Amino acid sequence: MSRKSNVLTARKLFAANLRKFRTDQSLSQEKLAELAGLHRTYIGAVERAERNISIDNIERIARALNKTINDFFCTKGQ
Amino acid sequence: MSRKSNVLTARKLFAANLRKFRTDQSLSQEKLAELAGLHRTYIGAVERAERNISIDNIERIARALNKTINDFFCTKGQ
Repeated sequence: MSRKSNVLTARKLFAANLRKFRTDQSLSQEKLAELAGLHRTYIGAVERAERNISIDNIERIARALNKTINDFFCTKGQ
Repeated sequence: MSRKSNVLTARKLFAANLRKFRTDQSLSQEKLAELAGLHRTYIGAVERAERNISIDNIERIARALNKTINDFFCTKGQ
């Protein structure tokens, strides 16, 4: 938990919304990873706000979930 | 220019809006870098969409410009 206390707000917000959108669509981390062209363990780490995700991967995930990038930075998902 | 043709849309949109917001506020790349705690050459590279910026640095730049992250992913700035 001490690792998480240092991460910035946007990272945590993205993580929470990612998990929400993925589970809303009944997608496993494995399936989302496949859709986005990323690795399953990477998706898990991003959802735990452990990884400092890049803008290119944010876009890949947003496209895979049929979301806009802005959807991930709204507070609705928290 | 060939380097740019492979970058994803979000990266280019962020780059365009970053340059717009920075110049709207009459900030040099040097000054913005100082405000955001980043390097001047890094700001320049992000504005040219050459760097795959991370979410933590997106947040640092947004805060330095008094913008929300969502402001950078609207098409108004293009």
